[in-house]
Amino acid sequence: MFAIVVYDTAVERNPKVLKICRKYLHWTQRSVFQGELTTAQYRALIAALRAVIDPDHDSIVTYTARSPEFVESTTLGVRLGGPGDIL
Amino acid sequence: MFAIVVYDTAVERNPKVLKICRKYLHWTQRSVFQGELTTAQYRALIAALRAVIDPDHDSIVTYTARSPEFVESTTLGVRLGGPGDIL
Repeated sequence: MFAIVVYDTAVERNPKVLKICRKYLHWTQRSVFQGELTTAQYRALIAALRAVIDPDHDSIVTYTARSPEFVESTTLGVRLGGPGDIL
Repeated sequence: MFAIVVYDTAVERNPKVLKICRKYLHWTQRSVFQGELTTAQYRALIAALRAVIDPDHDSIVTYTARSPEFVESTTLGVRLGGPGDIL
């Protein structure tokens, strides 16, 4: 599956969320990750994120598609990250 | 088509980018919009965004799928925005 993760979390929790996302996905832009995952990897990512966020204050949205072919990505301006840029 | 727009733009340009995105899509989270668009609307959105950003400093990534059925969205924690919440 192809996954996009966007997060809006409290500053003090950002480093943990960033670290978890980096294990599974490519950094695309501030608070945005993308990449290909198996279903098992996606579940593990979600479980890891749930364990570190405060569900009453933080917000993470994931978008998944069965495969990358279903989603077209276009960049306007500077290409900050993306596949191949695992920081 | 279903579109997701994420932007990382200079602070002084954020209000313009936000205003343009609001015309076409639903605010989902800080710097993230989503929604359904016709191809013509998508082209108009892209043209409007190109006209206000500095391509050497700002970054906007769009993800499009032929229809919402191809993309599943999941929210962890607080649901900040989304369909129905046109601010």
